[in-house]
Amino acid sequence: MSKGMVKNAAGRLVPTEVNGRKAFPFAGVGGHRPAGVKAAPRVATCIDYPADGNKLVDDIETALRKCGLRDGMTISSHHHFRNGDLVANAVFDAAARIGVKDLMWFPSASFPCHAPIIDHLESGVVHHIEGSMNGPLGDYCSHGKMRGLGVLRSHGGRYQAVQDGEVPIDIAVIAAPAADPFGNCNGVEGPSACGLLGFALADSQYAEKVIVVTDHVVPFPCVPWQIQGNYVDCVVQVDKVGEPEKIISGTTMITRSPDRLLIAEYVARFVRDAGILRDGFSFQAGAGGTALAFAIFLKEMMKERGIKARFIRGGSTKYLVEMLEEGLTDYILDGQTFDLDGVRSMRENPNHVNTSPFTSYNWHGKGNFASMVDAVVLGATEVDVDFNANVVTHSDGRLLHGIGGWQNCLSSKCTILAIPSFRDRIPVLVDRVTTLCGPGELVDVIITERGVSINPRRKDLLSAVRGSDLPIRPIEEVKKEVEGICGGPPDPPELAEKVIAVVKWVDGTILDSIRQVKG
Amino acid sequence: MSKGMVKNAAGRLVPTEVNGRKAFPFAGVGGHRPAGVKAAPRVATCIDYPADGNKLVDDIETALRKCGLRDGMTISSHHHFRNGDLVANAVFDAAARIGVKDLMWFPSASFPCHAPIIDHLESGVVHHIEGSMNGPLGDYCSHGKMRGLGVLRSHGGRYQAVQDGEVPIDIAVIAAPAADPFGNCNGVEGPSACGLLGFALADSQYAEKVIVVTDHVVPFPCVPWQIQGNYVDCVVQVDKVGEPEKIISGTTMITRSPDRLLIAEYVARFVRDAGILRDGFSFQAGAGGTALAFAIFLKEMMKERGIKARFIRGGSTKYLVEMLEEGLTDYILDGQTFDLDGVRSMRENPNHVNTSPFTSYNWHGKGNFASMVDAVVLGATEVDVDFNANVVTHSDGRLLHGIGGWQNCLSSKCTILAIPSFRDRIPVLVDRVTTLCGPGELVDVIITERGVSINPRRKDLLSAVRGSDLPIRPIEEVKKEVEGICGGPPDPPELAEKVIAVVKWVDGTILDSIRQVKG
Repeated sequence: MSKGMVKNAAGRLVPTEVNGRKAFPFAGVGGHRPAGVKAAPRVATCIDYPADGNKLVDDIETALRKCGLRDGMTISSHHHFRNGDLVANAVFDAAARIGVKDLMWFPSASFPCHAPIIDHLESGVVHHIEGSMNGPLGDYCSHGKMRGLGVLRSHGGRYQAVQDGEVPIDIAVIAAPAADPFGNCNGVEGPSACGLLGFALADSQYAEKVIVVTDHVVPFPCVPWQIQGNYVDCVVQVDKVGEPEKIISGTTMITRSPDRLLIAEYVARFVRDAGILRDGFSFQAGAGGTALAFAIFLKEMMKERGIKARFIRGGSTKYLVEMLEEGLTDYILDGQTFDLDGVRSMRENPNHVNTSPFTSYNWHGKGNFASMVDAVVLGATEVDVDFNANVVTHSDGRLLHGIGGWQNCLSSKCTILAIPSFRDRIPVLVDRVTTLCGPGELVDVIITERGVSINPRRKDLLSAVRGSDLPIRPIEEVKKEVEGICGGPPDPPELAEKVIAVVKWVDGTILDSIRQVKG
Repeated sequence: MSKGMVKNAAGRLVPTEVNGRKAFPFAGVGGHRPAGVKAAPRVATCIDYPADGNKLVDDIETALRKCGLRDGMTISSHHHFRNGDLVANAVFDAAARIGVKDLMWFPSASFPCHAPIIDHLESGVVHHIEGSMNGPLGDYCSHGKMRGLGVLRSHGGRYQAVQDGEVPIDIAVIAAPAADPFGNCNGVEGPSACGLLGFALADSQYAEKVIVVTDHVVPFPCVPWQIQGNYVDCVVQVDKVGEPEKIISGTTMITRSPDRLLIAEYVARFVRDAGILRDGFSFQAGAGGTALAFAIFLKEMMKERGIKARFIRGGSTKYLVEMLEEGLTDYILDGQTFDLDGVRSMRENPNHVNTSPFTSYNWHGKGNFASMVDAVVLGATEVDVDFNANVVTHSDGRLLHGIGGWQNCLSSKCTILAIPSFRDRIPVLVDRVTTLCGPGELVDVIITERGVSINPRRKDLLSAVRGSDLPIRPIEEVKKEVEGICGGPPDPPELAEKVIAVVKWVDGTILDSIRQVKG
């Protein structure tokens, strides 16, 4: 065993210290009990803020200086603009001009549009990133080029880490489509409307300093105030905060692949045949092509049977909005709008409710919404025969995706992974997932184009679908069939010893390590 | 000077310790800078809460036991039902049955309906009360019968005290007109709808344990969730949580007194003539008869001149709701609904926005709404020639009123006290107020039926009304005239040495002491 590494309850080797902080190894689902109290930022006073409520300053650089930016600080940002964010790069460009070094960037997620941060990692302005790294930054990290360890947290895990004081944020920067000079802001108004700002909630509540950056200043009050100005230090007006058309990021198109359509249909039929589809039920499906197709199949079944959901969890798309508008659900409880119909609906429809990682996902709260959802449909890059799943690394070992709400959603009453059995002739069903992101005991059903595999732990589901005409098949059988097609199990990725990132579980413990790729 | 007492910056003798905690003497407006960090409740974990979100327990007693009620704890409650609250008494009755002693009751305010708490004070179940004591409980305290010191805080000061950890709440009990089994709740739905629940916000965020008591359980999700279930430990269903018709509490009738109508008219004319009445302006007026009459005079002036307000701060009444519905303001920013039209409007109109002591009044935030209001119209029990004002004790020295948002509103751009010059032949204008609640430097204008007296510090206002046909008169002149009518200045109240309560300033310092009345 490497020095400073321990084997955790999932049998994975994980470091005992992460970026200078003691780390707890994963202790099993529900096995880690937090000690201590919540983070406690300094008490502010109105003495230090303008009585007229006007906190506007000239530009991002001025705001960073006013907030006392210095070497080694942690700067956070949110990703509601996804690949259309224009603010994070501007913040680190300004930090570079100010001349500070060794910052930690703590985004709720980063995207290909943030590739310019690589220059700041190279120059030393940014020391390392803790947060999802989708694409180029993940690849950079995978090749061992980042100084600190990457830390991958779920949306709920990020809230937990901030709430628990594990990550003290020095300066939070919140890109806001609409704001007043006091700092009240929202994502539903203005030319760059992106829906909501829930990923920045923890940052606003717990950061020592908060900067709101907007391209649409309205007179006080900015209503609704999704982020409250009483937490905000400065407001900066810029030309453009984001390109909302890019929040779509290629994920929100219904699949045309016949295999994936078949998967989607199996999922919908499973939800129906297992008795989950009943009046007042709830579900969550992401914005990937298969998940969208599932929602459309399900919608037809609901109409056929006259069934209405109590709530659908977003990320929202026009398909969910249509269901709300057609009366097929009482509410959309939304954490992230994935298209402009979602944005419009959230602005106009009081039953399209904005949620946050606190309400939906925080494991260190007094419950959360995720465990109340009847069925959730998720993806994965790999799964094994014990139903363990990977969602962050590819079969070649490269870290290319964030966790998002994926881990948090596993606490749903029925967690379904809807995945192709192979991709590019590489099996998705493996002996051992490259990176463990979700413990198998929480994954209830794996549905591929080859059939429906139910976790043997879920005897209730197995007996519920008895008599269904769905192809219910043991996972091992599907795996063998796929290996026959692909010419055997996939080659294991070529990995070096060096750990370049860790995957946190929802309770803040370390679930797995990610190693550098060779070459 | 008595032992353990110091003279503060306002020249008032105040204790250096209050209920076992070190107390800071008032250091002047803006003179006290907080040190330290916010209160930090224990980190919770979903391990301890039901995955299905159902936190319903049988009754209040069970909930209190589940929350670990024991001797000496602090139990908080809110006063959105005002004199129609049915929950606080039930909580202390249950505590008495459990057999605990020496509780501290920390209501946001208490009313005559809470007179039964006197029995619990007598029996030792309740040790003392920190919170507004309107009527019988204040009288009880004034006679020196309560064991601890009463602590009077403004709405903002109460949020500050909880946020800053000055008052750690062990168990918060939140009476909610509508709630789901998870604990999400609001004040706008259900048979006992009272409007909003903002006075319970700090309690939900910072208390170790939170009990929601409701008479209207809805399936998850209860939308809007004015209080978030993620903070809630237990939900209890009872027959009735409150009598919303009693939120009116006799304060929301327009005055018929010719003197008070004259005062109201003077106030409206002053706001107009001083140039405050302009497009996009804002104001706050309470729910007293004079304040309501003022709003009606002002409304006519606004219609005459085609002026629209940007926002009106509530307490809301049907008169403000009419202004919103007639397009005379963009928003009502409401902290407390004072009648059922207010409740309806908040439920139905997205521009009738619910606020909290955090957004509106907390001095230990990064600014608050109160200082952005162009003009506020308030009452007082006494004022002196230096514009110092009293709002909690009567001329006989008895403590009969709470502070409410009164102190917080003093930071408005123009603070107007609209008061009769005498009551029951006792002058309201005095040499020295019995209890100092508001420092004179923050009171800009005193308007009685005898004229408009502008604080000499406000040279800008004095010059703004030059040429107005209002009776602008020095405060000393009005005082002399009133003393002529009443046969001299009022007799000073007969007070004992013993301090029975303190008045806190918005920053948590001690502004004044209240002494026991003799006899």
